[in-house]
Amino acid sequence: MTWVFDHAWMTGVFGDKAVAAHLSAEVQLAHMLRVEAAHSRSLGNERAARAIETAQICPEDLTDGTAVDGLPVPELVRCLKAQISPELHGDIHRGLTSQDVMDTAFVLSLKDILPIFRQRLSALQEDLAQLAQAHGDAALMGRTRMQAALPITVADRIATWRMPLERHLDRLDEISARVLNVQCGGPVGLLQAGLRLRRRWAWQCLTKAGTPCAMDLANWLSLVSGSLGKIGMDISLMTQQGVDEMCLRGGGASSAMPHKQNPILAELLVTLSRYNAVQLGGMHQALIHEQERSGASWALEWMILPAMLHCTTRGLSAAQELLAQVENIGA
Amino acid sequence: MTWVFDHAWMTGVFGDKAVAAHLSAEVQLAHMLRVEAAHSRSLGNERAARAIETAQICPEDLTDGTAVDGLPVPELVRCLKAQISPELHGDIHRGLTSQDVMDTAFVLSLKDILPIFRQRLSALQEDLAQLAQAHGDAALMGRTRMQAALPITVADRIATWRMPLERHLDRLDEISARVLNVQCGGPVGLLQAGLRLRRRWAWQCLTKAGTPCAMDLANWLSLVSGSLGKIGMDISLMTQQGVDEMCLRGGGASSAMPHKQNPILAELLVTLSRYNAVQLGGMHQALIHEQERSGASWALEWMILPAMLHCTTRGLSAAQELLAQVENIGA
Amino acid sequence: MTWVFDHAWMTGVFGDKAVAAHLSAEVQLAHMLRVEAAHSRSLGNERAARAIETAQICPEDLTDGTAVDGLPVPELVRCLKAQISPELHGDIHRGLTSQDVMDTAFVLSLKDILPIFRQRLSALQEDLAQLAQAHGDAALMGRTRMQAALPITVADRIATWRMPLERHLDRLDEISARVLNVQCGGPVGLLQAGLRLRRRWAWQCLTKAGTPCAMDLANWLSLVSGSLGKIGMDISLMTQQGVDEMCLRGGGASSAMPHKQNPILAELLVTLSRYNAVQLGGMHQALIHEQERSGASWALEWMILPAMLHCTTRGLSAAQELLAQVENIGA
Amino acid sequence: MTWVFDHAWMTGVFGDKAVAAHLSAEVQLAHMLRVEAAHSRSLGNERAARAIETAQICPEDLTDGTAVDGLPVPELVRCLKAQISPELHGDIHRGLTSQDVMDTAFVLSLKDILPIFRQRLSALQEDLAQLAQAHGDAALMGRTRMQAALPITVADRIATWRMPLERHLDRLDEISARVLNVQCGGPVGLLQAGLRLRRRWAWQCLTKAGTPCAMDLANWLSLVSGSLGKIGMDISLMTQQGVDEMCLRGGGASSAMPHKQNPILAELLVTLSRYNAVQLGGMHQALIHEQERSGASWALEWMILPAMLHCTTRGLSAAQELLAQVENIGA
Repeated sequence: MTWVFDHAWMTGVFGDKAVAAHLSAEVQLAHMLRVEAAHSRSLGNERAARAIETAQICPEDLTDGTAVDGLPVPELVRCLKAQISPELHGDIHRGLTSQDVMDTAFVLSLKDILPIFRQRLSALQEDLAQLAQAHGDAALMGRTRMQAALPITVADRIATWRMPLERHLDRLDEISARVLNVQCGGPVGLLQAGLRLRRRWAWQCLTKAGTPCAMDLANWLSLVSGSLGKIGMDISLMTQQGVDEMCLRGGGASSAMPHKQNPILAELLVTLSRYNAVQLGGMHQALIHEQERSGASWALEWMILPAMLHCTTRGLSAAQELLAQVENIGA
Repeated sequence: MTWVFDHAWMTGVFGDKAVAAHLSAEVQLAHMLRVEAAHSRSLGNERAARAIETAQICPEDLTDGTAVDGLPVPELVRCLKAQISPELHGDIHRGLTSQDVMDTAFVLSLKDILPIFRQRLSALQEDLAQLAQAHGDAALMGRTRMQAALPITVADRIATWRMPLERHLDRLDEISARVLNVQCGGPVGLLQAGLRLRRRWAWQCLTKAGTPCAMDLANWLSLVSGSLGKIGMDISLMTQQGVDEMCLRGGGASSAMPHKQNPILAELLVTLSRYNAVQLGGMHQALIHEQERSGASWALEWMILPAMLHCTTRGLSAAQELLAQVENIGA
Repeated sequence: MTWVFDHAWMTGVFGDKAVAAHLSAEVQLAHMLRVEAAHSRSLGNERAARAIETAQICPEDLTDGTAVDGLPVPELVRCLKAQISPELHGDIHRGLTSQDVMDTAFVLSLKDILPIFRQRLSALQEDLAQLAQAHGDAALMGRTRMQAALPITVADRIATWRMPLERHLDRLDEISARVLNVQCGGPVGLLQAGLRLRRRWAWQCLTKAGTPCAMDLANWLSLVSGSLGKIGMDISLMTQQGVDEMCLRGGGASSAMPHKQNPILAELLVTLSRYNAVQLGGMHQALIHEQERSGASWALEWMILPAMLHCTTRGLSAAQELLAQVENIGA
Repeated sequence: MTWVFDHAWMTGVFGDKAVAAHLSAEVQLAHMLRVEAAHSRSLGNERAARAIETAQICPEDLTDGTAVDGLPVPELVRCLKAQISPELHGDIHRGLTSQDVMDTAFVLSLKDILPIFRQRLSALQEDLAQLAQAHGDAALMGRTRMQAALPITVADRIATWRMPLERHLDRLDEISARVLNVQCGGPVGLLQAGLRLRRRWAWQCLTKAGTPCAMDLANWLSLVSGSLGKIGMDISLMTQQGVDEMCLRGGGASSAMPHKQNPILAELLVTLSRYNAVQLGGMHQALIHEQERSGASWALEWMILPAMLHCTTRGLSAAQELLAQVENIGA
C-alpha cells in the first residue's frame, strides 16, 4: 500500500495529479537549478547563470550523492561544476547553503500550488452555493450531539459548511505573504548575503526576500482539510439508511454486497482530515530545532509537509466530486 | 503527578498563577453569569440582568447537574431560575444554548489572557535585546546539524531567537480578531438571535459579534511554545560541559550528585513545546465535528486548550526566568 | 476549564475518584517515603528506615524546593535529614537518584491502579455478556462504511465489542510484568546498586527488580480507551433518531431544547479515546531521551501519563454507567 | 520531495529496498491473488484456485475500479471473473469481503517483513556487542539532563542502548502471534465462514486463523524506532566538537562548508523516530471505527502503517550503517 498518493491503484482514490506534478523530483530539480541560476545572476554573472540553465542533470544523478550527504545539493553543485567551465565556478552557489536552495525550490513549487488551492476553494464555495440554490429550502432535522434538535433547512447546513471556507480564503492571503519568500540564510543562517543581494535574488526567483514560514502553511492545510472532513462526516451521516437526508449517485461497490453503494468520497474527506491533524502535530515538533540549522527537524518537515499538501489538495477535489454526486438533499 | 500545572509541588515548575487565575472555576462561573446577564440586558430586560448579577451560585452547585447533563449550563440556568422571580424567566437564557454561554465565557477569559501573552512576549524580546546588548560581541561557534560550522557572534544567535517572536506578536493581532468574539449560535447554530441582538450582546460583553476560532489560537500557542523550545534546546546545548558557551546561576540540584547544577528551565521549555505540539494535533481532530454541534469534539477542546494556554504562558515566564540566570554567554 | 479530571464541575463528567486517589500528591509523597524507607532497610539500616517512616512531611513542604530543582526529591531528602539524626544520614538515599524514587513511587501507585483496570474490564465484559443475554436475539442492521449491509443480531454487535476487551485482559498480564518493577538506576543509570541490593529493595517495595517500561503501559491505555471509544461511537450512531437501534434512559439535558436527551456518556467515550490516542504520540516522543537521563523527556511523561490513566479508568466506569442506561437495543 | 522512501534522490537516505519490495503494488497484488486462490481451495474448488493462480492481472488493471469503489477488490474480482469460466465463479470470493482479502494480503507481506526486523535487530545487537568489545573500557562522561554527572565507560552507555532492543525481540514474538493471522470477517465481520473453513484457509495461506491486530504492530514499530532515535540522539551529542566522544568516518558533506562532516545517519534516526511517534498517534485514532467496518478508519491505517514499517526497517539498517562508521568512541 506504501504511498497511497501515487500507488498503482490507490492513486485512483488518493492521488491528485496537479499537486503531484508540482512536487515531482523533476520539477524540484528544475526549481533548484532555477534557484542556482537566479543566484548567479543576482551575483552579476550572467554567463554562470546561463551555464546552469543549460546544464544536463537528471534526478537520478543525485541519488548516490544524496545517500552520502543526506541532501541533494552538494552533489548538484558537483554535477554543475563538472559541466561548467572552472572560471565560472566562483559564482556558482557562492554564499548559499543547501537549505537556501532546497527551501527556495520548494517555495517555487508552492508558488504554483497555492493558486490551485485558491482556485479549488473558490470553486467549492461556488458549488456549495449552487447546491444551496437548488435544494436550500428543503427541510432537514438539525442535530446536535448527533440527536435530533430542531428543524432547519438545507441552506442552514450548507451555510455552516461554507463559513469556514470563506475564512480559509482570507487566511490564504496572510500565509502566502509568509510563505512565498526566498530562503537565503547562508551557511549559518545569518543572511550574510546582504539585503540587497537577497532582494535581487528574490526578484529573479519572482518571489520576495524574507524567510518562508512552513508552519503557517501547515496550520492552514490542516484547517482546510479539517473543514472538508466536517463536510464528509456530515454527508456520511446524512446518507445513512434511516436518516436518508442525502442521496448520492455513483459511489463505491462492495465486493461482497452488490446492493451496497458506499459514500467513499465522504469517508475519504474524514480520513484525509484526521491524517492531516496528526501530521500537523509532527510538523510542530520540528519547531524545536537546534542552533543554526537542525538536520533532524528539517528532514521531519520533508517527510510530512508534502503529504499534507497532497491531502488538502485531494480533499478539495474530492469534495467537488462528492458534491457532483448529490442527487438529492433534504429529508 | 496528575495535573502538573496545579500539583502541590510540581506547580513550582509548571504552574503559572496568572493564567490559572483566569481559567479557574470561580472565574469561569463569574464569566458565565456575566454572559447570561449581558444577554438578558441585550434582550432589554435590565431587571433580569440585575437578578442574574446578584444571584448566589458557587462552582460546586453545578457539579451534580454537570454529571448528568455533560455540561454546567442547564444546571446554571436551573439555579438562576430557582433564585429569580418567575416573571423574569422568559428573558433568562432565551435563545441561547450551552455552547453560547460556555464559549463566550471562555472568550472573556481569553480577553484577559491574551494581553498577558502580549506583555510577556514583549518583555522577553526586551530581555533578549538586553542580553545581546551585554554579550552580543562575544564569539560563538555557529553550529549546523549539531556540528561546528563557522564562527558567529552571540548577537547572531540571539537574533535567530528574536525573529520568530516578532512574528508571533504580529500574528497575535490577527488571532485576537478571530478569537475575541461572542459565540451566539443558538440551539442549532443558526445565529437565530439576529445580527442586531448579537451585536448588542457582544457590546455588553465588551467583545465583538462573530464566531470565535479556537484553532487559530491553538496554532499560535504551539508556534510560540515551539519558538521557546528552540531557545531552551539551544541553551541546553550551550551549557554542556565541553561546549561551555553559557553559564547559568541557580539551577536545579541533583539528589545524587551535589556538584551538578541542572538547567531545568531550559529543559522545561523543550518539554512544554513538545507537549503543545502534540496537543495541537489533538485540537485539529476536533475540527471534524458532526452536524450542528458535536459533543465529542467540543469536549476534546475542553481537555486540550486550557493545557495549551498554560504551557505557553508558563513557557514565556520560564524563558524570562532562564535569561535572568545567564551569567555568561559566548565561548 | 483547566484540568477536567478534577475541575469543580467537570469532575462530574470526567473525574474518577479511584484513580485520582492513587495519584494524589499525598499518596505520591507517602509512596516516595515508603521507597526511601525500603531502600534504607535493604541497606540493612532498620533505624533509618523507621525514622523515614515516621518523618512528618507534607506535600507543600516540597513546593519551593521543586521550583528550584525541577524535582521534589532533593528537597524531600533535605527535609528527611533535617528531621533525622545525622548518624543515620549515610543510609538515607545512598546510591539512589531522584528518578529511582519518583518512578518507583509511581510504580507503587500503578500497583494499586492496575487491579482497578482488571476489575473494571472484567465487570464490563460481564455487563456486555448480560446485555447480549437480555437482547442478543434482537435484529440489527449490520452496517459497513456507515451503510446498511446485512442483517445481524445484537449479539453479533456486542461480540465485536467484547473481543478486543478480552485481548486487553491478556495484554494486561504482559504489561504488568513489564511495568511493576522498581526503578533503581542510580545516579547515571548504571544499576550500580548491584542486583542483590536491588532485589532486596524490590522485595521491600513488594514489587520486582527490573526497569519499569512506561511505554507498554501507555500503549495499553490507548488500546483500551480506543476499544471503549468504538463502543461509544456505535452507541452514538444507534441512538440517532431515524436509526433508533438503542434507547437510553437518563442522559443529558439541553439548556435550549428541553425535549432533548443527549447520550453524553457515549460521546465521552469517543472524546477520551481520541484524547488518549493523541497523548500516546506524545509519550513516544519521550523515547528519544538523551544520554543517561533526559530531563526534558522525563517531564513530558509526567505531563502525559497520569492523564492517560485518568482517561482509561474513567472510560471504563463511563462505559459501565452507559450500559446501565440501556433500555432497549435492537431495531 | 513527496514520498521520501522512494523519491528519486531521497531514497538514498530514507529508502529501504527490502521492505519496499514486500510492500510494492506488484507483491500486494500477488498476495491478494494468493489469498483468493487459497480461499477457493479451502472451499474445495481446486480448479477455481488454479484459475485464479494463472490469471493475468497487473496493478494498473485495478486503478479505474479503485477510483470508483475506493478499494481494489471489487475490480480484482471482476477481472478474475472476466478471465475465468463462469461455472467456477461460485467459488471465487464467496463469503469474503474486501477487507478479508486486503488485510490478509497485507499479513502475507508482514510474514516476510517481520523476519527482516528480527534479523536486523539481532544483527544490530551483535554490532553493539562488538563495539562494546572493542571500545567498552574507554572512559566517557556520564551525562544526565545533558550535564556532566559521573564518569562511566563506553560499555555502560552501550548497555543502555542494547537493553531495550533485547526487549523488542521478546515483544516481537508476542506481536507476531497477534498479527500473523488471516482476516476473515466476511461481509459484516461475523466470521460467518465458520471456524473450520477459516482454519483451512489460514492453513492454505501458511498463517493462522484469528484476527490481525495492526495496533500491536504499530506500537512495536514506534518502540523500536524510538530506541534507535535515542541512539541517534546520543551519537549526535557525542560527535559535537568540544564533547568529542565519538569520531565517525564518512558522513555527509556540506554544500557551503567543505570542512564539515555531518553525522547524517545519527540525525536520520532521530527524524525517523519522531515521525513514527507522531504516526502512532494517528493509528490509534483509527481504533474508533464505526459499526461492522469503518471505511474512514481503515483508510487511515493504509496511509500510516506502511510508512511506519519503512521508518523502522530503515532505522535498523541506518543504525547498522552508522555503527560501521564509528572510528573511535570514548573521551
